[in-house]
This record gives sequence, structure tokens and C-alpha cells, in this order.
Amino acid sequence: MAYIVDMRSDTVTKPTKAMKHAMVNSALGDDVYGEDPTVITLQKKVATLLGKQASLFVPSGTMSNLIAVMVHCNKRGSEVILGNLSHIYKYEQGGAAHVAGVQLTAVPNNPDGTFDLRDVEKRIRGSDIHEPITSLIAIENSHNVCGGKVIPLDWLDSVSELCKKHSLPLHLDGARLLNASTHLQLPPERLVRGCDSISLCFSKGLSAPVGSVLVGSYHFIEQARRVRKMLGGGMRQAGVLAAPALVALDEVAPALALDHKRAQVLAKVIEGMFLKNFTVDVAGVHTNLVMVRIPESSSLTTQLVEQRLGQVCLAETQGDCKTPNDEGVIVKVCCFSDKLLRLTLHHDICDEDLWLAIMKLTYVFRELEAAHPLH
Amino acid sequence: MAYIVDMRSDTVTKPTKAMKHAMVNSALGDDVYGEDPTVITLQKKVATLLGKQASLFVPSGTMSNLIAVMVHCNKRGSEVILGNLSHIYKYEQGGAAHVAGVQLTAVPNNPDGTFDLRDVEKRIRGSDIHEPITSLIAIENSHNVCGGKVIPLDWLDSVSELCKKHSLPLHLDGARLLNASTHLQLPPERLVRGCDSISLCFSKGLSAPVGSVLVGSYHFIEQARRVRKMLGGGMRQAGVLAAPALVALDEVAPALALDHKRAQVLAKVIEGMFLKNFTVDVAGVHTNLVMVRIPESSSLTTQLVEQRLGQVCLAETQGDCKTPNDEGVIVKVCCFSDKLLRLTLHHDICDEDLWLAIMKLTYVFRELEAAHPLH
Amino acid sequence: MAYIVDMRSDTVTKPTKAMKHAMVNSALGDDVYGEDPTVITLQKKVATLLGKQASLFVPSGTMSNLIAVMVHCNKRGSEVILGNLSHIYKYEQGGAAHVAGVQLTAVPNNPDGTFDLRDVEKRIRGSDIHEPITSLIAIENSHNVCGGKVIPLDWLDSVSELCKKHSLPLHLDGARLLNASTHLQLPPERLVRGCDSISLCFSKGLSAPVGSVLVGSYHFIEQARRVRKMLGGGMRQAGVLAAPALVALDEVAPALALDHKRAQVLAKVIEGMFLKNFTVDVAGVHTNLVMVRIPESSSLTTQLVEQRLGQVCLAETQGDCKTPNDEGVIVKVCCFSDKLLRLTLHHDICDEDLWLAIMKLTYVFRELEAAHPLH
Amino acid sequence: MAYIVDMRSDTVTKPTKAMKHAMVNSALGDDVYGEDPTVITLQKKVATLLGKQASLFVPSGTMSNLIAVMVHCNKRGSEVILGNLSHIYKYEQGGAAHVAGVQLTAVPNNPDGTFDLRDVEKRIRGSDIHEPITSLIAIENSHNVCGGKVIPLDWLDSVSELCKKHSLPLHLDGARLLNASTHLQLPPERLVRGCDSISLCFSKGLSAPVGSVLVGSYHFIEQARRVRKMLGGGMRQAGVLAAPALVALDEVAPALALDHKRAQVLAKVIEGMFLKNFTVDVAGVHTNLVMVRIPESSSLTTQLVEQRLGQVCLAETQGDCKTPNDEGVIVKVCCFSDKLLRLTLHHDICDEDLWLAIMKLTYVFRELEAAHPLH
Repeated sequence: MAYIVDMRSDTVTKPTKAMKHAMVNSALGDDVYGEDPTVITLQKKVATLLGKQASLFVPSGTMSNLIAVMVHCNKRGSEVILGNLSHIYKYEQGGAAHVAGVQLTAVPNNPDGTFDLRDVEKRIRGSDIHEPITSLIAIENSHNVCGGKVIPLDWLDSVSELCKKHSLPLHLDGARLLNASTHLQLPPERLVRGCDSISLCFSKGLSAPVGSVLVGSYHFIEQARRVRKMLGGGMRQAGVLAAPALVALDEVAPALALDHKRAQVLAKVIEGMFLKNFTVDVAGVHTNLVMVRIPESSSLTTQLVEQRLGQVCLAETQGDCKTPNDEGVIVKVCCFSDKLLRLTLHHDICDEDLWLAIMKLTYVFRELEAAHPLH
Repeated sequence: MAYIVDMRSDTVTKPTKAMKHAMVNSALGDDVYGEDPTVITLQKKVATLLGKQASLFVPSGTMSNLIAVMVHCNKRGSEVILGNLSHIYKYEQGGAAHVAGVQLTAVPNNPDGTFDLRDVEKRIRGSDIHEPITSLIAIENSHNVCGGKVIPLDWLDSVSELCKKHSLPLHLDGARLLNASTHLQLPPERLVRGCDSISLCFSKGLSAPVGSVLVGSYHFIEQARRVRKMLGGGMRQAGVLAAPALVALDEVAPALALDHKRAQVLAKVIEGMFLKNFTVDVAGVHTNLVMVRIPESSSLTTQLVEQRLGQVCLAETQGDCKTPNDEGVIVKVCCFSDKLLRLTLHHDICDEDLWLAIMKLTYVFRELEAAHPLH
Repeated sequence: MAYIVDMRSDTVTKPTKAMKHAMVNSALGDDVYGEDPTVITLQKKVATLLGKQASLFVPSGTMSNLIAVMVHCNKRGSEVILGNLSHIYKYEQGGAAHVAGVQLTAVPNNPDGTFDLRDVEKRIRGSDIHEPITSLIAIENSHNVCGGKVIPLDWLDSVSELCKKHSLPLHLDGARLLNASTHLQLPPERLVRGCDSISLCFSKGLSAPVGSVLVGSYHFIEQARRVRKMLGGGMRQAGVLAAPALVALDEVAPALALDHKRAQVLAKVIEGMFLKNFTVDVAGVHTNLVMVRIPESSSLTTQLVEQRLGQVCLAETQGDCKTPNDEGVIVKVCCFSDKLLRLTLHHDICDEDLWLAIMKLTYVFRELEAAHPLH
Repeated sequence: MAYIVDMRSDTVTKPTKAMKHAMVNSALGDDVYGEDPTVITLQKKVATLLGKQASLFVPSGTMSNLIAVMVHCNKRGSEVILGNLSHIYKYEQGGAAHVAGVQLTAVPNNPDGTFDLRDVEKRIRGSDIHEPITSLIAIENSHNVCGGKVIPLDWLDSVSELCKKHSLPLHLDGARLLNASTHLQLPPERLVRGCDSISLCFSKGLSAPVGSVLVGSYHFIEQARRVRKMLGGGMRQAGVLAAPALVALDEVAPALALDHKRAQVLAKVIEGMFLKNFTVDVAGVHTNLVMVRIPESSSLTTQLVEQRLGQVCLAETQGDCKTPNDEGVIVKVCCFSDKLLRLTLHHDICDEDLWLAIMKLTYVFRELEAAHPLH
């Protein structure tokens, strides 16, 4: 069988040996009674890491964001202002509206993951009875759809000031916050200084099997606990999931820099091929995501590329293109749109995997470039 | 006391004599039992006027739009695609999200009230479990925030085709639909040909005291009746409101053209003053709304203008600027933003009122132009 | 055509001459701007009548109750404790849950419209994260499904004390509050002394065409105004509805005692027939509703009775049973269940109507008794 | 430190050695992509066990029930009819109303966990526009608040027939379904034959750390998957939780009969003490729950008993009452109400634990009986 390098997402990462060891050797309890010592330890550790009072372990980043919206938006007819490329707006199924009864008002994201704060300020509502009540501003860092970009620190400070000026809470979808702090070489606490709540995922780049942590003040987390119960996110011996998350902080978080370096290598290799059908903005590769863009004018689509990368042709297993196991390499990728492809580096892709992926990608990209000439 | 010309909105119109006569001389019944003959007559007449099967009388345009969203969006996690300047998105307090659990996804409105259909098509969701279910497209005609513009007929046909292609229903917020059909000199039926539901208001340009009508298929209206009851929109002897609405169709609708002519006169007068602080796009005045724009660079704001128009200075009541009652004229206006002023013509503004308003507006605009010189 | 006496409900009442006069002769304005003087007058008058700070005119009792629930229950996961025979629980389509996201927890109503306060106290929740947050207690007076019974004053005081003890607001569905105060010969203010909000209907016994008023504190009504807008209950020249409501307070409210007397007469007549199939609890007829009960063991159903009362047989229009117009009488009634029939007295049923109805009812009841012998 | 026997709930059970082995030795994948082989295996196995088409792994029983309500109740204004002592009604924070917009209509549970089906039939709504739409009937087996009672099979068949007659789906909260099937010595498939959906918990008596499975038709589960994503119940390498659940089916499920035997022993011992303050209905102990009732007339409360059982007095560690470790025994219990105490047997309570618990309970019960004499 072909050798698979799965670059679709960092969510595919599997628990490490140390994580597995922790899963079966950590103290457990019933977390619905608040008695799981491993969950308690994780919650304290994450709160401290982010410089906040408290935190809450939940099954997913989607639930973490949803709970944040439900706690912050506690008036009937509330709205959240957020970027139109944010995960909450695009990929959480309208849960804010359907489950929480909250309107999401999207402003256009800039390519760097920020948005225009003057535009936001104009949209903050007064007391007009025709309009919803602006109750929250939400940002994302690093920004997934913007290619894993790390939000500039001064913009973070500006949005926080804006929130304070208007007495609005600020929520950060920090699913990949540690990737951002790794890139900036700053403690995560600095990046969330102006945020009232943060969602952090352990099942993405951090490689733990399941779970996210929602962070905020004591009062916020107390309310979040109620909402988690209502949504069905209360888990019993959740320590089996918190234990690998704790390991992730010690073992995987320091290794994120390696993912970023590999992403740089990959981006530069693709750039260095000087193909017309496949372009990469190397300077924009801040973290572990590499976005490959196909020009609108090209007859190629990402779906075609994805399909081809998922197959091994005869030539690949013969001649100069041999792979270790002689059966060829498959690279799994993620199509963000018809013309935008995401390649993700993560803890389960070592240097050799990267080398195999590059071999495959260059082979296929060149083949497709030949078949789809662009002028 | 000063003479008041109220140009804030056509919602301020009061019932005519004929309407009052009808209110007290029409047959009544309990409409919750479906027994008010006047309501039934109105509902049939409006359905016929728009070439649809059935309709439902409701207390307001906001409820009419809300019911349409609730009936069309009957799957959990639904979204509506609509313009970012539409009334549903801007001025209905996020009710779609809060009451109906439906996400509103806004695309930018063009200045003519349309939006980019290729953009819409890109946003129509597939079956991805991360995304909401696109369940409705909503448009507005004439378009209030776009200055009462009438949507081009061919665009209406295009959006309808798009909806059919994707098996999506199309809702029209036709609060001022009769203004649009008057402008195009086409029967309203033609304008809503491709729409599955339409909301029509009687308490705006049509001058009736209260009420809107939601129009659609038998099946749609049957469900709408249930939702109306749930929201508390079922009214008992609603014939007292339907009667003036019936009169409005015969008496006021044919006179809408006069409002449009007066709006043209007003727009041309303001344009003809050649002021730098106050500009009007005369060609864009399609119906009864006149939008006066103040340049961003000006030190003037609409709030300042509104305040000044609401006062009478000594000079106005003396000398050449005398008013009929010697006490001066007040013009009430609507501030859409700091730099955008809306003047509305309607059935309660006759030619003499218009003349008085123009006298006052020219006086004040010149005074302010002198005080706020622009280069 | 047969002469019709409509005893289905007091909602069928039509506006009086004085109401119609007021409708066309009252000052009007745009109530969404808060400028309708007649609405303002009505709101002040009703607030004063009930000894509260403020009130709000809305299209229906259902909306009035829904708004009250939405304002009082402002925490996620709230519940209302109320009687299982209350209108809010039985006849408002689950709007509290669907629109407001609020759980209705029903306790069994006693036959007198009260419920067991010890039972309520047991159900008031603590802070257990598994349970909803008890946020409101709701009562009804007079109590429709309990046969228009007037709630004992000391129980009203007890439920109010219970609410104060637990810091819970108390809402009264007073759709027919003035019937209750008429029966007790006490000012309505006394009956609502312990209530935080009250809904009062004008389109039931008070005979006005459309509308209810929600009453409470300034702060409560300010929030209610926002919710009304969201639900689409904001109406423009609502004075046309407020004007007849004002008349109702002066003209119809004092006449409610007559409806009650007529209800007594009707109840005693039915009791005096000593039929086995049709029994009435005369002492329980407090206001304008007469409940006729058919024994479970009878083969008769209310639907059968309703159908027969809606027809005129040959014998009725001949011989001793002649009616004024020689065409017979039809009595419309309301089936509460298979075995429970409601007859309603109201302003549109004068003494002669009552006489005709009694004639018809006795004729039909006797006929049915003969056909359905009970032992 | 005192030796603790935790009888509060079977949710406190910790994973067995075999479970831990499975957690770290099972194949994993990203379950949001549907690629976790262990989750897939569990879902197939549970569906087969219950004789249904498909199933879905979710983080908790609360979410499982909530998703079932959200999928079955897909019309605006829906209601569920269920028992007033059911977990969904009492202990899920009103999530059906708040999150799903669905009204829960409770009928009184009989002491055996059933409810009156004639009562239910009366409450099933017709098409009256005033009423919600009855969309689901929900039952629970074994019934927690009724003391772990197993619902009689013929009643299960009757409620299923009733549902079919009215074309209503039937949901079973089978958090402890395997306890019920163990008691009846029937395959679980037989117990759920008439159900359209079932929720089964693995973190209660089955001793797995986290997770429940929702079971139903292909079509039902397809929709449930969308709803799970919206609520944030989609988990990545969920195989780490599914693996112990699979072990539970093979290892713990067959041992449930032991828990039931121990519950019998405990109940009989308490009964055999002939105390007036503590009574047990031995015949009603069907599964692993033992309910101890304190008479209303007693001055004792369960809170007092709970507190006393949580302490060790001097006498207990000296003299005849010695415990293995010489430090005394603590028994943790659950207060269902002031007068109702729940003792739960489960996989982590072996015979020796039971013996220690009995020793402690008899000591304390006798002590309290002496201090609180009842006549």
C-alpha cells in the first residue's frame, strides 16, 4: 500500500506514547461533580498559562466558542461582531444563531486576519430599538482561513482598547494560539492580555486526542459550566482526555516551532519551482499552514489536485521516483475553495514524511503544470 | 406654533377620511376564527394583486418578514442570504437569530439595492456538516437604505433564476413595493413574479394606520398563520385595520406617483442650489425618498442639520421669509448616518407643504453652507 | 336566516358606536416613535388603574404574555412555574419554549384556578447545575379553563409572598382581570398588588376590536418595548385601536356586572332543568363564563351538542317554539373537551339574546336528554 | 484516612484495566472526518445490539437526549410528552426549551416509571392553531428517579402502539438500558423494539470513562450527526473513549447482574433492621439502585444522614466496629430529596466494599433511629 502523508489538518494528529501513558496513569474522578483531579490540574495550568482566573475543559473548539457566545451575549437580541473568514462565522453551522439566538455580524477580514476597526466602531449599536445589542467582539489567532497568519500584536492591543472604550467583552478563538505565540516568541499570556475569554484547542497542533479549554474570569467560567451542562458537554472521567492535554503542553507545545520550520521549507520549495499554476506567499507562512493558490485563470481546480495527490501512477513507483516502500506516496490535502489548497504541518509529520510529501508534490505539480499551461 | 412638515418617514402618514369611514362601516368578525370578512377581502385582494395564492394580515412589516423567515427556514441550522443594507438585516433587531434561530448572512448591497449574484452563488452552502443550511434568499424593493431605489427588473429575474437553480425560496421585503411598481409603471405582479413570498406594508406610503400583508402559496400561508399565532400577531376584529388598507389600495396607491414627482422637485431644487455641503443624486431618486449627502470632509453632521431644521429663528418669521401662519416652518428629517439625511415625501405632504419645506430647507442649507465653508 | 347568538367567546364582541366614534376622532401619531397621543393616554390610564408605573399597548394577549416571559426570564435555561390549565401553558403554542427558550413547568391547577403553593415551593430550583433557573411564577385571574373563576384574594397574597420570599417576579395573565375585580367589587389595583407584571386584554369582555396592554415597572416596560419591536408588535397609528380601548374602560367595563348576572341566570336555568346529561356548578359561575359538563358515562359529546345547536329543526320554527324572525335560533358554543362545553356571556348578548339562547338551549338539551338516557 | 465506599452514583465508576489497555492499543482516526475505526466499530456494535440501523457516539447522555429531541422535533412549536420524573424533564436544565425551542409537557410518572397512556392520548394535540405540535413521546428505562425500576414490557409495547397510532416517534432514554435488560433476562433489542431512537450511556453502570451512544435509523443518525456538530459534540480521536466503551460491553455488561444482587442484599439488610426512620421497598429494587425513604413525620433529613455517613466517630474506630484499615468507613450517598436517599451499586463496589458499607450504614442508621424516635 502507498505511504500516506496526511496534510489535511492538524486535527488528524494522534496521541503520543507519553500521552497514552498519561491517559492510563492519571488520577480520575467524576468531573460533573468537579472531582477529576487531572481535569482540575489542566484547567489551573491553562488558566495560569494565559494569565486568567479560571478555565473549563470541553469536548471541542466549537463548543468552547459556542459557550463563550452564550455567556457573553446574555441579552435578548444580542449580536457578535467578528471577521467574515473566522471559524465561528464560517464553520460552526450557525450555532450562535440557532442554539444561542445571537446574530453574527461579519466584517471583512483583511488577508492578515485583522479587520478594519473603524468599520467595527461604526457597527457598534447604540440604543436604537430597531437594532440588536452589540454584546461581543470575537477575533481569531492564529487565523486559519487566512493561512495560519499570526495577528499583529499592536492590532490585538487596538481591538482590546476599542472593546474597553465601548464596554464590550473580547473573545479570542485561540484554537491555534500556541502556534501564534511560538511564532512571535512571546508567552501566550501576552497575546491574550486584552481578551476576556479564550478558547484553546488540544486536538489540533497540540496532538492530544480530544478537547478544548475555555478560559476566562471566575464569574465567566461559573456561568460557562452551567451552559456546558445544558449543551451536554459535561463528561465524567474526563481526566482520560485531560491527561494527554497536559502532556501536550510539556511535550508537543515546545515542538510547534519545528512544524513552523517545516512549513517554511515546504513553502519555499513550492515557490522555488516557479510554477504558474501553484503560488505560495512564503512571507505569509507564519505557522504550520501553507496555502497554495491556483490562479483564477487556470483550468485547474484544487479538487483535481487533491484527487491526483491521492493516487500513485506507475511512473512514480518506478525509475527515479522511488519511495522507501516502493509503493509510492499519497499526500492528503484540504481544499479551502476551488482555487485555494491548504497543506498542514503537524506533530505526526516528521522530516522524512516532509521529504516524501515534497517529492510527491513536486512530481504532481510539475505534471499538472505541463497539462495545464498558463501564459 | 410653527407649521410642521414631517419628512422623517412615510410611516407617519395618518388615515384619510375615506379610510376612517371604512373603519367604522366595514363588516367585522373574529379573525382568529378566520371570520373577519374585511380581512378576508383584503387578503384575497392583495394575493390577486401580486398574482399569488393567498395572504395573511399581520400587525407590522417586521412581523411579516420574521414569519417569512420562520416558515422558509424550517431546518435546524438554517441561514438566509441577504443584502447588508436590507431592513431585515439592519433594523429588525436580530429577530431572525434570536426568535427564529436563523443566521443572516449578509452580502454587500450595491448602491442600486442589488447585490453580486456570483458572490451569492459562492456562498450557497453544500452539505458540509460544518456549515449552516442555506434556506432562503431575501431581497428588498424599493430599497429603503439605498434611497428608495427600484431594483432593475432584469436583476430580479436573475436572482429568481438563481434561486430556482438551487431550489431556494426567494422572499421579497416589499414594504414599499407599490412605490417600485409605480416607478416602473408595471403591475406589482410583474415585479414579484419570481418571488415565493412577499411582505407588503400598508402603514408606510399607503397611509393606512397599521398593518402589513404577507403573501405566498396556500401552503406557505397556512404555516404562516400558525407562526403568527405563536408570535402573538393574531388579532380579533382586525377588520378595523384591514378596512383602511383596502381603501389605501384604491385611493392612495394611485397617488404614489405624485409623491415621486414631489421627490423629484425637491431633489432638483437641492441640486440646483449648487451647495458643497449638500448633494443629491437626482437620477437616483426613483420613488418617494430623497437622500441628501454631506461630504465626509465637511464639519457638518446630519444631527446638526436636523436640529436646525427643527427650530425657527427670528429672521424666518420676519421680512421676506414669512410663512402662512407667521410662525415659521419646521421640517422633520431622518438621520441615516452622520453624513446621510433622508427626506420622505408621502400622502400627508401636499404641494403647499412641499413648497414650505423647500423654503425652509433652502434657507437653512444656505445658512449652514455659509457657516461651514468647504473648498 | 336563523338568528345567531354567539356564545363561543367574548373575543367575538364588536366595537360599540362610541368606540367607532373614538376610532375616527382621536388624535393619532406614529407609536413606533412613541408619538401617538391616544396610545400614550391609554397606557397611562391602564398603568394608573392597576397602580403600576407604566404599560405598553400590544396586538394580543398572547404577545403580552410572551413579552412578559421574555423580559422576566433573562437567563439562559430559565423556567416559569405556572398552572397546567393556564392559557400560557395550554393555548399559546409553546411560544415560551420556541420563541423565548424558556421551559414551562406546570403544576396542577385546582378547580378554583389556584395551585398548591407548597408544591410550587418544592419545585423552585436551587443552584444545581442539572436544573433550569426558576425565573418567574405566572397566574391567571379570572381563570378561563377553570370556568371564569375568580382567584381568592388571600391566595393571591400568598403567592405574592412566596415570590417575594424567593425573589421571584410574579406575572398575572389578567386577560379578564376586570371581570375578576367586578366580581369581587374591588378595584383592579387591589387584585394585582403583589404582581410585577400584568397582561390585560381589551378585545375580550371589554369589547374593543384589537389589543392588550402589558403593565409593570418603568424598567420592565422599557425592556418590553424592545421585545415588542423584535416580535413585530410595534404598530404605527395604533391610536385607532387604543381609542376604542379607552372607551371600553368607561363604557363597557362598568357593564361587565350585567354579563355576570346573565351568566347566573343561564346557569340557574340549566341547573333547574335537572337533566342528567347537562350539569352546571352554579356557585362556581363567578363571571361571564358558564361551563356545562356532560358525565363521562354519557354517550353524548360536546361536539354533538355543538352541531345540534348550530342547526334549526322544523319543529323549532313552528308551533310553540317560534322565534322573532320565524327562522329559528342558532347558539354557537365552545367545546373545551369532549365533555366540557363553555357558554360565554358578553357585551353583544343583550337580555333578549339571552332569552332566545335559553329557549334554544333548553329545547336542544331536553331533546338530547331524551335521546341519550342516563341512569 | 477513612475507607470510602462511593454509593452516590454509578457515574463515579472508573475504567477497568482492560479498558485502559484498550484505550492505548486501539486504532484511532479523526472522527469528525468519520475515520476513527474504533468509534465506527462501537457504533456498529451498539446499533446491532439494539436491532437498529445506525448509531452515533456523543460526549454525554444529556447531549444524546438533546440531539434526539432536536432531530425528532423539527417543526416550529413542537412539544415532547414525557414523564414528570424523567431525567430529560428534571435534570437537563431545560435544554429542550432553551437550545431546541421545544416544549416539554410532563405527565405524572407512576411509581413504576410508567405513566397513564389514556392521559397521554388526551394530551396529543390536533391541528388547533393555539396549541403546540406534539412531535415526540419520550420514556426512560430503567427509571432513575423511580428507583431504578424496570418498565414492564407490556407497557413498553402499549406506548409503542400508541405512538404508531398517532404517527409519533418514540425516544427511549436508556442511560441504564442494559440494567433493565439484565433484570428482565431479555436481549436489549427486545426492550427497544418499539422505539425510534435510544440513548445508551457508557459512563454509568458500564464503567467506561466518558460517552453515550444515540441509536436510530440511518436517516435519523445522519441528521443527528449535523446536530452533534452544531452543539460542539464532534470529537477528533474519539476512539480513546470508544475503546473502553467496547470493552464495557464485553466485560462489564455481563457483570451488571452482580450489582443487582448486591443491591438486593443491601435492601434486605436495611429492611431487616425494622427501623422506623429508614424504609426500603425491597420488591421495587429491580436493578442497581436502592432508595431509602425517611417518613415525612420524622425529624430526620437525608442531608443529616449524608453528613453523618461522611464522618467517622471515635466509637467506630474502636471496639467491635473496627474496619480493615482501622480508620473507619465513609459511605457517600445521594440525596434525591429531603426524605429520599439513593444508594447505588456499581462495578467499583465489590463484595467487601458492600460489607463495609452495610456495617457503616447499620451503625449510623441505628444511631440516628435512637436519636430520632418515631412512634
